[in-house]
Amino acid sequence: VTAGLLTVACAQLAPRIGEPEHNQALTEDAIRRAAAAGARLLVLPELCTSGYVFADAAEARALAQPLDGPAVSTWRRLTDEHEMVLVAGLCERLPNGAVGNSAVVIDRGELATVYRKIHLWDRETLVFAAGTQPAPVVATSVGPVGVAVCYDAFFPELMRSLALDGAQLITVPMNTPSTGTTIKPLAVEVVTAVAAAATNRVYVVQCDRTGDERGVRWVGASAIIDPEGRLLATADHDGAAGQLLVAEVEPGMAADKRVGDRNDVLSDRRPGLYRM
Amino acid sequence: VTAGLLTVACAQLAPRIGEPEHNQALTEDAIRRAAAAGARLLVLPELCTSGYVFADAAEARALAQPLDGPAVSTWRRLTDEHEMVLVAGLCERLPNGAVGNSAVVIDRGELATVYRKIHLWDRETLVFAAGTQPAPVVATSVGPVGVAVCYDAFFPELMRSLALDGAQLITVPMNTPSTGTTIKPLAVEVVTAVAAAATNRVYVVQCDRTGDERGVRWVGASAIIDPEGRLLATADHDGAAGQLLVAEVEPGMAADKRVGDRNDVLSDRRPGLYRM
Repeated sequence: VTAGLLTVACAQLAPRIGEPEHNQALTEDAIRRAAAAGARLLVLPELCTSGYVFADAAEARALAQPLDGPAVSTWRRLTDEHEMVLVAGLCERLPNGAVGNSAVVIDRGELATVYRKIHLWDRETLVFAAGTQPAPVVATSVGPVGVAVCYDAFFPELMRSLALDGAQLITVPMNTPSTGTTIKPLAVEVVTAVAAAATNRVYVVQCDRTGDERGVRWVGASAIIDPEGRLLATADHDGAAGQLLVAEVEPGMAADKRVGDRNDVLSDRRPGLYRM
Repeated sequence: VTAGLLTVACAQLAPRIGEPEHNQALTEDAIRRAAAAGARLLVLPELCTSGYVFADAAEARALAQPLDGPAVSTWRRLTDEHEMVLVAGLCERLPNGAVGNSAVVIDRGELATVYRKIHLWDRETLVFAAGTQPAPVVATSVGPVGVAVCYDAFFPELMRSLALDGAQLITVPMNTPSTGTTIKPLAVEVVTAVAAAATNRVYVVQCDRTGDERGVRWVGASAIIDPEGRLLATADHDGAAGQLLVAEVEPGMAADKRVGDRNDVLSDRRPGLYRM
């Protein structure tokens, strides 16, 4: 094993709405499978504890958990046991009673950060309080990890911000509803992830969900992408339930932003000449 | 023909360095072929008059032309005759004696704007003066046209800026040297163009070159992409010399930034939460 190499994984689960114990068991099984595959970083889907297609805000509130609830507590215990970093989506009961579409970063038993999605998609606006803090970069035992949740990753300025803040691995818990428009040969959510990886020279580890839910189908856009934009792992065509994507990465490679002999994708920026 | 539909084209030429008359003839032939195909917008490659792999700055200076030189003069005459908008790369002799890696936008006989590339790639830094003005959006007879030149398009903030400035069609004259790294199933330069189109809901019309030149091979990354990220036209696998890509577009569609029932890719931005 070359110094600096490590194994990362995504588990493309199929949670069931309204069955939190079933969903919790899926996440625990995924952590054990990832550990068995040697993974030191695992990404799980957005809202993997609750499901996604809420009937209304009340249903989301009823399925939400605080940060000392069963999901985070169990994840802390298992990541400690397996010496792993976990990034997972959580339907979070906020201290003020609102509900957050959140992602937690847990590093070997410790809750390192919680991030609340800042770009809400469609009916999420009826259910969740949008986050008010920037997407974070967290110093972890696998290096600096950035977090974006699903539609967040559709904003190139957010992915760029994570790279400027030093993220070497950008993790993206997601739930990508299929809109009926099929972009070939790669789903547009995979394309945008490849572009983010290549233009920022970072790894992207994104974990979608699968499984029909109240008439919604999912794209299955899970992917692990290297800083040159190579797809190291993608989901099977039909987004098999529970599929574990695994790849070996070298996060330190993402600290080097050079391309070719004379260029650097971050220092070549011309900030005075953009409209932002 | 639906109101608002128009035909756009890219001509993936194979210029020869040091043979400006040959190259000029290629561009004139491309304009005539595009007109015959009904195109009202044609994009030609970066530096299509001069070639790309200059031995040194002196060779670039010798092959540069001012804006009243033969290339622009001829293009003005032909676009007037064919009632066409042309976006083409030009090795430009600047008034101060320096050389610009420029793109001109010519609308039915009139030089609407000239843009000098602001992100220079590799040895271009030894040859060209980097532009000092933002990439422009130009009101033309086919709608608001944005311009980026090759490596410029690798900066998501530049593409976003063009969208925020109202571009409906982003044109990208390019010369993409093959680096030996093959990204499959799509070249990374096509992937980044698809991502720019989809995340900004704009058309992207990018025109690469082909033809070996002093040991350099080219990716042949020409593509016409719609605001949902669909590839309307791409180059043949080996980037056939002179290939004309043609597609029918509806620029007005790119004025609508809505996605789904409740979202808008520009107004959903959270500018206070990015690091730029």
